[in-house]
Amino acid sequence: MTSTPQTAVIGVSGYAGAELARLLLHHPRLRGHAPVFFGRPEEGSPANKKDARIRLTDLHPQLADNNGAGNFFVEPFQWKALRERGIELVFLATPHEQSRAWAPQLLEQGVRVIDLSGAWRLDELRHRAVYNLTDVDPHAAEAIQQHAVYGLPELHRAEIAAARLVANPGCYATSVILALAPLVRAGLLDRQRGIICDAKSGVSGAGKAPTAKTHFMHAADNLSAYSVFGHRHMGELLEQLQLTEREITFTPHLLPIPRGIFSTIYVSLEKTAEPEAIEACYHGFYSASPMVRWYGTRLPEIQQSVRTNYCDLGFALAPDGQRLIVVSCLDNLLKGASGQAVQNMNLLFGWPEQEGLA
Amino acid sequence: MTSTPQTAVIGVSGYAGAELARLLLHHPRLRGHAPVFFGRPEEGSPANKKDARIRLTDLHPQLADNNGAGNFFVEPFQWKALRERGIELVFLATPHEQSRAWAPQLLEQGVRVIDLSGAWRLDELRHRAVYNLTDVDPHAAEAIQQHAVYGLPELHRAEIAAARLVANPGCYATSVILALAPLVRAGLLDRQRGIICDAKSGVSGAGKAPTAKTHFMHAADNLSAYSVFGHRHMGELLEQLQLTEREITFTPHLLPIPRGIFSTIYVSLEKTAEPEAIEACYHGFYSASPMVRWYGTRLPEIQQSVRTNYCDLGFALAPDGQRLIVVSCLDNLLKGASGQAVQNMNLLFGWPEQEGLA
Amino acid sequence: MTSTPQTAVIGVSGYAGAELARLLLHHPRLRGHAPVFFGRPEEGSPANKKDARIRLTDLHPQLADNNGAGNFFVEPFQWKALRERGIELVFLATPHEQSRAWAPQLLEQGVRVIDLSGAWRLDELRHRAVYNLTDVDPHAAEAIQQHAVYGLPELHRAEIAAARLVANPGCYATSVILALAPLVRAGLLDRQRGIICDAKSGVSGAGKAPTAKTHFMHAADNLSAYSVFGHRHMGELLEQLQLTEREITFTPHLLPIPRGIFSTIYVSLEKTAEPEAIEACYHGFYSASPMVRWYGTRLPEIQQSVRTNYCDLGFALAPDGQRLIVVSCLDNLLKGASGQAVQNMNLLFGWPEQEGLA
Amino acid sequence: MTSTPQTAVIGVSGYAGAELARLLLHHPRLRGHAPVFFGRPEEGSPANKKDARIRLTDLHPQLADNNGAGNFFVEPFQWKALRERGIELVFLATPHEQSRAWAPQLLEQGVRVIDLSGAWRLDELRHRAVYNLTDVDPHAAEAIQQHAVYGLPELHRAEIAAARLVANPGCYATSVILALAPLVRAGLLDRQRGIICDAKSGVSGAGKAPTAKTHFMHAADNLSAYSVFGHRHMGELLEQLQLTEREITFTPHLLPIPRGIFSTIYVSLEKTAEPEAIEACYHGFYSASPMVRWYGTRLPEIQQSVRTNYCDLGFALAPDGQRLIVVSCLDNLLKGASGQAVQNMNLLFGWPEQEGLA
Repeated sequence: MTSTPQTAVIGVSGYAGAELARLLLHHPRLRGHAPVFFGRPEEGSPANKKDARIRLTDLHPQLADNNGAGNFFVEPFQWKALRERGIELVFLATPHEQSRAWAPQLLEQGVRVIDLSGAWRLDELRHRAVYNLTDVDPHAAEAIQQHAVYGLPELHRAEIAAARLVANPGCYATSVILALAPLVRAGLLDRQRGIICDAKSGVSGAGKAPTAKTHFMHAADNLSAYSVFGHRHMGELLEQLQLTEREITFTPHLLPIPRGIFSTIYVSLEKTAEPEAIEACYHGFYSASPMVRWYGTRLPEIQQSVRTNYCDLGFALAPDGQRLIVVSCLDNLLKGASGQAVQNMNLLFGWPEQEGLA
Repeated sequence: MTSTPQTAVIGVSGYAGAELARLLLHHPRLRGHAPVFFGRPEEGSPANKKDARIRLTDLHPQLADNNGAGNFFVEPFQWKALRERGIELVFLATPHEQSRAWAPQLLEQGVRVIDLSGAWRLDELRHRAVYNLTDVDPHAAEAIQQHAVYGLPELHRAEIAAARLVANPGCYATSVILALAPLVRAGLLDRQRGIICDAKSGVSGAGKAPTAKTHFMHAADNLSAYSVFGHRHMGELLEQLQLTEREITFTPHLLPIPRGIFSTIYVSLEKTAEPEAIEACYHGFYSASPMVRWYGTRLPEIQQSVRTNYCDLGFALAPDGQRLIVVSCLDNLLKGASGQAVQNMNLLFGWPEQEGLA
Repeated sequence: MTSTPQTAVIGVSGYAGAELARLLLHHPRLRGHAPVFFGRPEEGSPANKKDARIRLTDLHPQLADNNGAGNFFVEPFQWKALRERGIELVFLATPHEQSRAWAPQLLEQGVRVIDLSGAWRLDELRHRAVYNLTDVDPHAAEAIQQHAVYGLPELHRAEIAAARLVANPGCYATSVILALAPLVRAGLLDRQRGIICDAKSGVSGAGKAPTAKTHFMHAADNLSAYSVFGHRHMGELLEQLQLTEREITFTPHLLPIPRGIFSTIYVSLEKTAEPEAIEACYHGFYSASPMVRWYGTRLPEIQQSVRTNYCDLGFALAPDGQRLIVVSCLDNLLKGASGQAVQNMNLLFGWPEQEGLA
Repeated sequence: MTSTPQTAVIGVSGYAGAELARLLLHHPRLRGHAPVFFGRPEEGSPANKKDARIRLTDLHPQLADNNGAGNFFVEPFQWKALRERGIELVFLATPHEQSRAWAPQLLEQGVRVIDLSGAWRLDELRHRAVYNLTDVDPHAAEAIQQHAVYGLPELHRAEIAAARLVANPGCYATSVILALAPLVRAGLLDRQRGIICDAKSGVSGAGKAPTAKTHFMHAADNLSAYSVFGHRHMGELLEQLQLTEREITFTPHLLPIPRGIFSTIYVSLEKTAEPEAIEACYHGFYSASPMVRWYGTRLPEIQQSVRTNYCDLGFALAPDGQRLIVVSCLDNLLKGASGQAVQNMNLLFGWPEQEGLA
């Protein structure tokens, strides 16, 4: 690709939107060709009235230092803008329902789409049920779903490069799938004994809306579990790892920190193993994956991956050689959302996977 | 007073309400005679429908350990309940407007009132303006205002004991007034050069309502100043310390901690002094005040006063003997609100001032 | 027991020591009969020189509000003081080695002992190995070990009441054992499939010594796992729950909060069950235990138990009726250390178990 | 300058050292020409033995993502390495005494020096006293001191460009001087009435050594003042702003956050002014300063400048037009240390001031 592609972000007001804007404004391949920023249609009339632009740095003051971000505006979305501005790739940082409704129309106009919501991640209807999506044209939607690619580069690099619609994974799902995929693919697990994923996330994962749960007085000096046996990222785990619900238990907790996910994953091995075998399994699996850092028998800490696009993995094997703990750390807003979306963009455009992410 | 008085709290759902409930349920003089808990009238229909009681521990789970608090209920407020239940003292933990409207009616029924809002703290109309209060009967309200006592025991012990209506001070105001009163009363200050009060408060001071400001992502890892040259506790400082607006500057900041106020207060002395003179001034002033801890030339830290009803005071005097810094620490929910209300109750009933507060 | 017993604390300088001092100074049965506070012998010459007393509130300024705690002193320990002062009960808040060495001598003098260290908790030599204890007289030590009682009132109430030496449990161990004991005793667990205990603790659990790990810059905005497959509380879990090492995996994590433990415990049931059966199992088991709060299918949060002596328990049962998650929360310094020690004292002296702890 | 200069960092193990390494490894003008990293001589024998190199990412795991930082080593310092490696510029991130001793020798070898310590910041002997520096050759040292340039680009841009020795300012000093310089230079202040600087800093400002003060249990949920009337950055304020000690009071506080400084600065104006005059004063002063962000009458918050090299400034003017509050925020490790050092390097080499810092 010789010329710089025109990109756009729809829905730039949340935490993931801010990170996405920051990454795109800094991206070396987009230099001098900033994305078009659209507000979410539902963000109220001001942002949707014609000529009602707001400054990007009014939404996100911390962006004022990024390549002149003060000069960028968030505009109300208009369909005709897509053609007029020559937009080739749209990032949807919109609610699930809206991503479900808009992606087909964008694709129809020849625009490629990276969707950060849960709308297109799940092949099976029963897994999608959790999002309460309604399709105007279920047949068309199903056809699109068939060709949507789950945007985890470490697992689907080639398909992503060729995709029209990339469904960017959930933050927890990224953390758990990257930790388990090498073991599952190698058939090392005793699936009978079950897999336990005890995951902990910083508060940004709960979104920007002020709620009783995200109030400082509740989140600080606290820890709580939520969505036990019912978190909506479960479907991603089941489909990507090809497990049954009884084989994997996933429990998210709310940590009193701004960002980061730490997953402690407990598995049993089919046969006793030496640590070297575990090392070899992960080494082989991720040898061509620049955004996974392998810690071996050191265990990563959440601080080390925060504000990076890395997923850090490490393990501990019990003296019995059979009980294995894998620890997976990442930044929920980067590798768990916007950084991964940029990684997917790099693949779509044939650029080095880590471009603009180190 | 021989028999145990019947008390009531109106508006028990906030942070101050929870602390007040905890203190009253534990109070040795109220043993076996728990307060009646009423919801705020505006707290929505459920709490106000007849028979629509909610369990106190459903509102505040942490109270489950307090003398069987699980057995207490929050009832919708009813005027007739006052007489039927023989209530002698009401704590109003209600919004300013409501406290302004209700206190006269409660007094008329012969009930004594300790109001935790700002409604009755200020004698001067221009200082009250900040609360946008409207009186149905301004003359009557003014008459009541004349007899309302500012509930800072260390300054108005005798008046409080005899009061019908006690206006419980603001949290910042308590912190600053206790730090300055000894110096002002002793005439040691060079008021010309001005007094600077740089105050910092934990997030509970911003209330229980989830807002962009109290969201963990904004409050954590942050510090911000607010209400600069316009905080509504200013009137209390001016009236209680008899200062003019140009003589005192007060700047509140939001600290990333749950509770506690730390005020750094800068004054100039009229004449150069030795540290011993400062010591003597404070010692004399607070010798009969059990809830003020004097640190001398050690400086208190916010941690030491949190979860106590103490106001901790310490100072540093510049080598020039003229520039003086006084540090004042307290818990905004206790000495800055509910603890002080209980201290006032003790005075009203002729009990030792610190009863139930150590 | 008619007269108030004389108690003493040896080693009052740490976090647990401060909490213990606070509880004992407040205890209604000890009113007017404060404990004797001794420093740790190894705390340096000043504390051990004759006449070298330090004020309790110099060690722990926050205690200044507790029943005149400012008037109490920490004295260098002297054996003859035991008899002279008529001490009946000693709390050892000393390092493991010292507790191992001193308890026999104290018992010999007719003093009862509650030891907060790990020295006497473990019957099996291989479990004690982790503490590197050396006994001058191994036979005598073993004889004492036989009669030491594991001080978890909910499991060993009667033995504690009669004990001469109570080994106060570890904080993590208390959290996990209370969560699992009802299920284990009822034989509901499928032990073959293994038990996973993912535990998280606040920083006070790491002790008062400043280290790289307890530095604010490392502990804040972070989460890390430690002592994986090798934490020294494992022996307590194995002995108290009568499990083998392969049946239970225990992983502690360091939370960025001052205090509190949250354990997420994953078990498989032998047979599918309804939630009611789980409710019944715990209800029955803890019906006479005032310091366990049962949350049922609500899950406790760490905030609710901090600064209380409660262990809060709740559960979630998977739709398959076989995978069960139990959440256990407590304050590591209270129910996990000093509060539990006071609970044990209450049993030793025949007082109500929760006296001075509500 | 056509070729890429060779730089070196001595003392890379602290927080500022880590940030400096990160910035230099990312710097576009140093691409492919990484700095040489030397340990501090006093960092113990391992780092100083010949061949005893340690990996940079072993010291700072979070750097593993920076342009192959895993391939860089920290070597024991050797004088001959300076010449052999052709080093033109050395960053000294060493203790004050060592910087004082080493800078002369480095200069003698024709190497330019940017010193991050306090050793060379102060012209007046009485201000330097706080650092207890001893010069082997006081005359020579004084001569060097005369030519050392205080490395605050916004005040000394031209001198820095020509300097051989740049004394990088203190973090607090940078925050306060940038806030006050425009007012002082314009002669707007009533210096008689005094200037109050109430400053608050995150814990990284206290350094990496674990101490009672930096222990999480002390720093978290707390606020404390320290070095009142005696902080060692005072000399910088006095010399750079040409004030007397009685004219300025500076009080630092320890905030429970990892990084960032927030200074609330109270001044009185010589004559009453309108906000526009304040705006104009700052606008003019910083129009050519890319690393100062001017907020006008909005007040900056600490979060917005953290992890940037900006100093954010805003103000509030009292209705009386005379009392003025200026708020200054920056990241103590960047604009307050390593970012500013890189800004100074840019000036030394004639590159755009903000290169590698946006």
